[in-house]
Amino acid sequence: MRDVAVVGIGIMKWGELWEKSFRDIFVEAALNSLDDAGVDKIDSLVVGCMTGGLFVGQEHVGAIMADYLGQKNIPAAHVESACASGGLALRQGIFEVASGMSDIVMAAGVEKMTDTSGDGATYALAAAADQEYEVFHGVTFPGLYAMMACAYMNKYKVTRKQLSSIPVKAHHNGAMNPYAQYPFPIKIEDVANGVKVADPLYLLDCSPITDGAAACILTTVENAKKMKKPYIKITGSGMATDTIALSQRDSLFWLKSTEIAGKNALKMAGRKISDIDCVEVHDCFSIAEALVTEALGFFKPGMGVKAAAAGKTALDGQIPVNPSGGLKSKGHPVGATGIGQVVEIVKQLRGEAEGGRQIKGSPKIGMTQNMGGSGASAVVHILEVE
Amino acid sequence: MRDVAVVGIGIMKWGELWEKSFRDIFVEAALNSLDDAGVDKIDSLVVGCMTGGLFVGQEHVGAIMADYLGQKNIPAAHVESACASGGLALRQGIFEVASGMSDIVMAAGVEKMTDTSGDGATYALAAAADQEYEVFHGVTFPGLYAMMACAYMNKYKVTRKQLSSIPVKAHHNGAMNPYAQYPFPIKIEDVANGVKVADPLYLLDCSPITDGAAACILTTVENAKKMKKPYIKITGSGMATDTIALSQRDSLFWLKSTEIAGKNALKMAGRKISDIDCVEVHDCFSIAEALVTEALGFFKPGMGVKAAAAGKTALDGQIPVNPSGGLKSKGHPVGATGIGQVVEIVKQLRGEAEGGRQIKGSPKIGMTQNMGGSGASAVVHILEVE
Repeated sequence: MRDVAVVGIGIMKWGELWEKSFRDIFVEAALNSLDDAGVDKIDSLVVGCMTGGLFVGQEHVGAIMADYLGQKNIPAAHVESACASGGLALRQGIFEVASGMSDIVMAAGVEKMTDTSGDGATYALAAAADQEYEVFHGVTFPGLYAMMACAYMNKYKVTRKQLSSIPVKAHHNGAMNPYAQYPFPIKIEDVANGVKVADPLYLLDCSPITDGAAACILTTVENAKKMKKPYIKITGSGMATDTIALSQRDSLFWLKSTEIAGKNALKMAGRKISDIDCVEVHDCFSIAEALVTEALGFFKPGMGVKAAAAGKTALDGQIPVNPSGGLKSKGHPVGATGIGQVVEIVKQLRGEAEGGRQIKGSPKIGMTQNMGGSGASAVVHILEVE
Repeated sequence: MRDVAVVGIGIMKWGELWEKSFRDIFVEAALNSLDDAGVDKIDSLVVGCMTGGLFVGQEHVGAIMADYLGQKNIPAAHVESACASGGLALRQGIFEVASGMSDIVMAAGVEKMTDTSGDGATYALAAAADQEYEVFHGVTFPGLYAMMACAYMNKYKVTRKQLSSIPVKAHHNGAMNPYAQYPFPIKIEDVANGVKVADPLYLLDCSPITDGAAACILTTVENAKKMKKPYIKITGSGMATDTIALSQRDSLFWLKSTEIAGKNALKMAGRKISDIDCVEVHDCFSIAEALVTEALGFFKPGMGVKAAAAGKTALDGQIPVNPSGGLKSKGHPVGATGIGQVVEIVKQLRGEAEGGRQIKGSPKIGMTQNMGGSGASAVVHILEVE
């Protein structure tokens, strides 16, 4: 198995991009990653996208993006694991380089969620849940995460104000990220003064609908050294699944897929959770961030929200969580999110995070955790400065 | 790079399966592949599916299928390259085993095309074309392939009767396949006596709308030998893309992606096209089969239809093409088709093809060619008896 490294990253300003198309936003981020790596030709493309079909009536996502990137004739795959599609794209790209089948692979993610062609974004996103046993009965994702939040907050006596600290921290970090959709700070009282979406979740607990793309260039560590570019080695990759329906799990709020994926990634890297210097996690809802930090082992069960409220996940805390602003402030173009996380961790490890959000003390080991649905899939990666 | 083999195959009766759901048909084929391999646990799952989103409102296809197969917690990926999604699933599964990340991987394909939840099968399938420059203007796949057929037949002076020989051969073979959707013979005059779909293509030139699934179990050759099961080695894998829109190609009927994918697969296997004993190709329309046999190099440009009309692609011909009955007779559940092709080639190489369609002379080297859209992607594999 060949060692794999990230030698280029590309992102673009995420937001409601009414004037740009599905293919436009992909090409913008992809070209930035090629520029950053200093290459103009790739051997293969892997694109994470949740549902080009439901959002814009376009599948065959690998082929169309290779074509519009000016790289037609190369192999091009589209991969999907709901909101973890980006993380999956990275993982599949790693397999391709590690196996020896390709030397330079672009692992990218894209989603065009505004101006949807079908029944709207909520319907499209619901395709990540169990269509027959959840969606058919009217449950959508804010409702599923609200149930998780209710059960968790009741069991561990978590207050509304404590939960609000998570989006406040997200917006604090995101305000320093020039690529974020909502780069502004919010105050703790703004959250519960807002619109209630699904009790106990308010609008500011929820990640937004976003158009966006991100890309990274993978190659072997051996090749990366020859390119004489700063590279970040990928030392661990873990993926796991759980029941598609929330109701079929042993616990409403223990993210088993994240637990397993995290352990497998750490094992592959030969690391323990306390070795991690910074992490980007899947905060599709405020409660999700807390549950993920517990499942990964940063905090004990029941302590995720309280740790965030105590400042332990801040940029200068015990473990900086979502220095980018996370899905909440940076935006959540579902298929692109997992690659956006890699872009942030690579920036942090290179010491290049903009706007004052660079973590102090030269972080050396970073982690990304990307999740699909209510946790039916999770992908975790570990990235390191060599 | 570890050598990879197929140690189990599974399929089920394809057709309009109104009484079975998306997940049901996957599980049926997947269990058959586990039985055939003699294993009850897999390390990882890769599922090819074109668009669970547009057909049945269900994405997160890897996670839901792992769950319903009773294999939750394993990694599970969904991959898509339109109608080449099955071939892509095999390719991604090969990478995963070859890289050393997993030892036993199920590569499967599934599509539930009847009882669609959205705007119908034609709209869903059109997502494989260029949404902005083809679909928006009203072109669908019968129209695209009809244009290819017109241009080709005019240039090479091909007659309607010659073209009709292709579906006649397909149904001849498919009539011997107990898993085929339309297992009955047709006569040459039936084709042009039928309903015209898009001039010059009639109903019997077109593959049907099908519910179906297929699966195969991959492992290393080393592991396969220990399992003491008959195994088929995968010696070559090639994938390539072309412009998503037919109008942007140099030729309306030369399938460049198939040409490149075929050459790359042969190069990897160390074989030449004349070494191939049998092939399953993507005959989504009768004309497609002829164009593919030319692009792969079995016949000279302009000779594909004429060779078929002369019997060179029959079970006892120069190169048996689509012994299974092909997409035309066996059915075309788009995401499953590429894996269905693997099932057939493995049966032929094991000498187990049912109903009298076993190719004589113990074929040793087989090929599969799976194609997306009007040829914007193609995946070719070479399988061999060791």
